[in-house]
Amino acid sequence: MLYQTNNPHGGDIYGREVLLDFSANTNPLGTPEAVRQAVRDSLEQMDRYPDPYCRRLVQAISRFEGVAPERILCGNGAAELIYSYCEAANIRLGVELAPTFSEYALGLTRMGGRMERYSLSRETEFSLEEGFLDFVGKVQPDAVFLCNPNNPTGKTIPRQLLEKVLVFCREHQIRLFVDECFADLSDREESLKDLLEDNPHLFLLKAFTKSYGMAGIRLGYCLCADEALLTRMAHTVQPWNVSSLAQAAGVAALEAGDFLKTTRSLIQTERVWLKRQLEQLGFWVCPSETNYLLFQGPETLHRDLKARKITIRNCDNYYGLGPGWYRTAVRRREENQVLIQTIREVLGKE
Amino acid sequence: MLYQTNNPHGGDIYGREVLLDFSANTNPLGTPEAVRQAVRDSLEQMDRYPDPYCRRLVQAISRFEGVAPERILCGNGAAELIYSYCEAANIRLGVELAPTFSEYALGLTRMGGRMERYSLSRETEFSLEEGFLDFVGKVQPDAVFLCNPNNPTGKTIPRQLLEKVLVFCREHQIRLFVDECFADLSDREESLKDLLEDNPHLFLLKAFTKSYGMAGIRLGYCLCADEALLTRMAHTVQPWNVSSLAQAAGVAALEAGDFLKTTRSLIQTERVWLKRQLEQLGFWVCPSETNYLLFQGPETLHRDLKARKITIRNCDNYYGLGPGWYRTAVRRREENQVLIQTIREVLGKE
Repeated sequence: MLYQTNNPHGGDIYGREVLLDFSANTNPLGTPEAVRQAVRDSLEQMDRYPDPYCRRLVQAISRFEGVAPERILCGNGAAELIYSYCEAANIRLGVELAPTFSEYALGLTRMGGRMERYSLSRETEFSLEEGFLDFVGKVQPDAVFLCNPNNPTGKTIPRQLLEKVLVFCREHQIRLFVDECFADLSDREESLKDLLEDNPHLFLLKAFTKSYGMAGIRLGYCLCADEALLTRMAHTVQPWNVSSLAQAAGVAALEAGDFLKTTRSLIQTERVWLKRQLEQLGFWVCPSETNYLLFQGPETLHRDLKARKITIRNCDNYYGLGPGWYRTAVRRREENQVLIQTIREVLGKE
Repeated sequence: MLYQTNNPHGGDIYGREVLLDFSANTNPLGTPEAVRQAVRDSLEQMDRYPDPYCRRLVQAISRFEGVAPERILCGNGAAELIYSYCEAANIRLGVELAPTFSEYALGLTRMGGRMERYSLSRETEFSLEEGFLDFVGKVQPDAVFLCNPNNPTGKTIPRQLLEKVLVFCREHQIRLFVDECFADLSDREESLKDLLEDNPHLFLLKAFTKSYGMAGIRLGYCLCADEALLTRMAHTVQPWNVSSLAQAAGVAALEAGDFLKTTRSLIQTERVWLKRQLEQLGFWVCPSETNYLLFQGPETLHRDLKARKITIRNCDNYYGLGPGWYRTAVRRREENQVLIQTIREVLGKE
């Protein structure tokens, strides 16, 4: 028996043979070579403790985001920052969408908090609409958690609506947590970072994990103008939470030039192709704006693919979804072709 | 301004020029080349999420320690495990020694707990003695925290006394937390792991940090027969807390053959030399059994050395110590010679 036996996420490709993994939404181009090289170079110093203040990395993020260093806190992956946010902000009652990424609720319940859910539906293509504000007004939570674009739907919340939520939250003394971890890989790369200064109740979560193919090394950060909150968050975690290898990798990633642009262009082309292929197989596919697609298919599809050493994300454990819902990453053409070909075989369409 | 501004530990060599660092107690031989190579090899997969269950690493630790896999939990450095232990075991009142490593108390107070301290003194060379049991009996804590060998004194608690504490704690329903992070680098390599099975109240902390020169990559683990506790601990942290690079490094470290033996031999020789040199300079030096020495010297020594780009650990922020107390790592002869030579210069003895 091993611990953490309830990991509900994709990407656990260990302990069995996996040929192609579509269950984790990381960059289809993998890790930039400059990032790998930076890690190799950092190995000379791996017997030293990491910089507990992430000095160089915070400066690099500050330049990249155009946000002052005192608005930035780094973590051992975005997931650690979710947990430390829930603890430091002392969120007793939260609101999130259904479906969405499960870690917000886990971070909350871990500290004894409770999460209320606003249901999105297939009928409206899982879009968020203004009725959400009434729901938030009724629940009166301590914080609203949004994922933009949303995981697993890939839908982006229109800027105008997001700004309305931001104002509404400010007026009602509600914190607004926006997970922008997939924004860098999305068509619109939308961020609320330009609104940070006047909105200390706004908290933005970002990660290197997906954008730069760095899931294995763990590195995330957040942006927020509430310095007291960031100070408390820093004190909820141990002093050396970000490894020196991750710090070096992060600095190199932010200098990786056109890597994100190239990735976005590939994702847009491939997503159109993959969506059409899935639709031609008779599946309903959610119109995504980022590097993954939520779709509805036969209830045994994930098992049939697994038997052929291909993994997709079974979404039956998301609130608001159920058996037959899947998420697949958008990857390179040759991989996407194998996925489609294998699904055709599974369905007996070959 | 950067966050985590109160890091009280040694090893923060960033943001200034450091020639030689004696403030962190890591292996004087650095990182084994096989460990570095394992990290390099793991970079091909760094876009994948880490194994959330650390399957290979847990198996390797199990073989190395001779402890069943279900007694093992890995963490992002030993420090993370301290914090998650305090949270998961719900320790309201703890007992520790003074002086000792400060993270136990930080982990406790973070969750609203309180720490009582049993003072050790220079007169008895900071040895733990049986009077400690009376103290524990009076305080009736939820947990006793021991560091063996103790940091910063380098003293090992005699096995016989440790077993008495273990029995006393069992009889009084007190958890016993023993930090064995420096045991691998100590003369006696003593561990209580053979007593785990019959003592589910016993918790042992271990790290790769010091033993294998892996402070930069973050990797620790714990051994405990209380499976419910380990399960709760696993749920206090995010799903991918141990990076894939750290997992690969850990597996390679445990296969590093005679590395620890060679290190211990070097440390024993060098510690004798360094202790004599410090004593010849007129300092009182605590008789250590591991890779660092606590000593008492002039109150400005750390600043004078810093001006010469050499760092030692200023121990004035340890409970039970004060200005003029220092800890220095035992390193390779050529480095130790530079330290002694520089102290001589500072003291005007040249």
